[in-house]
Amino acid sequence: MTPVVPAVVAAARRLVDPVLREAVGRLDPITARVAGYHFGWTEEPGGASAGGGSSGGSSGGSTGGSSGGSSGGGKALRPALVLLSARAAGGDVERCAPAAAAVELVHAFSLLHDDLMDGDRMRRHRPAAWTVFGGSEAILAGDALLALAGELLVERDGPGHLDAARSLSLAVRGLIAGQGMDLEFERRDDVSLDECLRMSARKTGDLLSCACSIGAMTAGGSAELVEALAAFGAEAGLAFQLADDLLGIWGSPETTGKPVRSDLRARKKSLPIVAAITGGGAAGERLAHLLARPEPLPEQDLVEAARLVAEAGGRTWAETEAKHRLDTAGRHLAGVEMPAAVREEFLDIARFITARDH
Amino acid sequence: MTPVVPAVVAAARRLVDPVLREAVGRLDPITARVAGYHFGWTEEPGGASAGGGSSGGSSGGSTGGSSGGSSGGGKALRPALVLLSARAAGGDVERCAPAAAAVELVHAFSLLHDDLMDGDRMRRHRPAAWTVFGGSEAILAGDALLALAGELLVERDGPGHLDAARSLSLAVRGLIAGQGMDLEFERRDDVSLDECLRMSARKTGDLLSCACSIGAMTAGGSAELVEALAAFGAEAGLAFQLADDLLGIWGSPETTGKPVRSDLRARKKSLPIVAAITGGGAAGERLAHLLARPEPLPEQDLVEAARLVAEAGGRTWAETEAKHRLDTAGRHLAGVEMPAAVREEFLDIARFITARDH
Repeated sequence: MTPVVPAVVAAARRLVDPVLREAVGRLDPITARVAGYHFGWTEEPGGASAGGGSSGGSSGGSTGGSSGGSSGGGKALRPALVLLSARAAGGDVERCAPAAAAVELVHAFSLLHDDLMDGDRMRRHRPAAWTVFGGSEAILAGDALLALAGELLVERDGPGHLDAARSLSLAVRGLIAGQGMDLEFERRDDVSLDECLRMSARKTGDLLSCACSIGAMTAGGSAELVEALAAFGAEAGLAFQLADDLLGIWGSPETTGKPVRSDLRARKKSLPIVAAITGGGAAGERLAHLLARPEPLPEQDLVEAARLVAEAGGRTWAETEAKHRLDTAGRHLAGVEMPAAVREEFLDIARFITARDH
Repeated sequence: MTPVVPAVVAAARRLVDPVLREAVGRLDPITARVAGYHFGWTEEPGGASAGGGSSGGSSGGSTGGSSGGSSGGGKALRPALVLLSARAAGGDVERCAPAAAAVELVHAFSLLHDDLMDGDRMRRHRPAAWTVFGGSEAILAGDALLALAGELLVERDGPGHLDAARSLSLAVRGLIAGQGMDLEFERRDDVSLDECLRMSARKTGDLLSCACSIGAMTAGGSAELVEALAAFGAEAGLAFQLADDLLGIWGSPETTGKPVRSDLRARKKSLPIVAAITGGGAAGERLAHLLARPEPLPEQDLVEAARLVAEAGGRTWAETEAKHRLDTAGRHLAGVEMPAAVREEFLDIARFITARDH
């Protein structure tokens, strides 16, 4: 099943792209170049330019867009949530464009740094930025995008924007905390499923939670609405991570933009894998044994590992858990007042990001 | 000459330290640990704790303080400038403590990331954080401190704080741009003195300029005052960098916390070195030739390189330029109204950071 990209995602891209390009256009040439590549506006140095530089243009990004992909609808998923969040509070979508761009900048910052830390060489069907420009340049570009994100939120006055800035800052700390746990997990062989869920809640859930509520903040939505939207986003974020972790094992390279079985190859402690190891009986034990081998795993061992995750119940658990999280997310939305169309579009996005082809 | 640390630096440390500790106490355990070590509150893992953890305490930092050191009075130099800046506008120093802590957090963020990028293994007489905790952990901790800095400035309402947040954001982008230029210089052999000055203006000047003006912003100072203080800081920042670059060649390890002649060893394109190479006739050419050798330079070559910097006029140029910048800085201060005592303390700090033992 490859659901159609919700229309709100394309609309968000059209609204946010010029803001992102203007913001990145403020940067020094070195970090602007890395950022332009990361956002898919330019090809690798020496290749043809795909998007005409880093400032001013209003055309949509050229990659990672409508093809699905492991970022779930390309680079406008989070902005789309921000826009919906503003509409949920009866707000103007134009007004929340800086907040939407800020969330996307934070997402880009985290990808730039995480890919380097994790040694991930592919991102959105292309070489990761650090492999193209160098590690130091990727660090600097990530730093610059993080700074820009904050900048966009303090350029307008008003209590809503201050709340938004605070919320984004908390989300940034959350995803840093999650990434820290993830790094720590790599060195441990006793990670529990509960720890793994807490890590994902921070690494993925916190920013989605912020994306789903920050638009309502800038629009002056009620505390009750903001809270419900944040809770929706946190649950949808976990569902999204579960779906992403399934793709990391069974997703095709065309869908994920990464080599097949990449999470097994990298021996990531992703949710289905930890679920299989910690609760999967004999098959789980065999899986743990296989992944504990010090040498790189040949292809047939990766195939066997994927089979063992399924046999140990890791796949079914993740699919069930994702559905459960999606249901919970929906209940949070149902509990507050908002235009029915907005609620439907929120649910469309949640279903879209958790029902990708794998 | 080792001038006495101005009293305002010690006062700033007392005021800002609890704010910094509270802020770092918000972080996840992994980045809090790296940050606590970087700030000198704790020793290396396994060593004795020097400061009692990461939250609440009001005691001064235990390292990098009154001993001079390459950070120019330890970790409270920039906060001291922020406090003076608030007092210049007739503001309350307590009220600007978050801004002072934010500037210090940005400084710490940049050191954590720069040391990793530059491969610098020593910082403030101790192993740099990345050598102790790992590169990924240093990246994450830097990210977390950058996020915290922004957070501190949006926790209070008011236009002054928004101005401050914008100013700090610009300074962050400036120092990132400067570090980017610095990285680029490492790969070039045709760096001009003008480029090198522009790099230093961004890498060091922009944050000092912000430190000198952000306190006045939070205190509601006039645009004229803010501008003059920013100009003072930019010039003092360049003077500081010139002094720091002289220390990088002739500073003793006791003063710098780094091995002797570390900038020559690392073949940094620092200001005195570039001045010597680009304007130093035959001695400059010999220096360029020596530093262009691919192999690590033995000790006697480093001694010879230092001699050549001096012979080619790089040392005298840097000393003269630093004095000139300091004079210009002073004129910016003289042009606006502020309490005479504050002006004197500003000048004391400027003299202190540019007259360190070398």
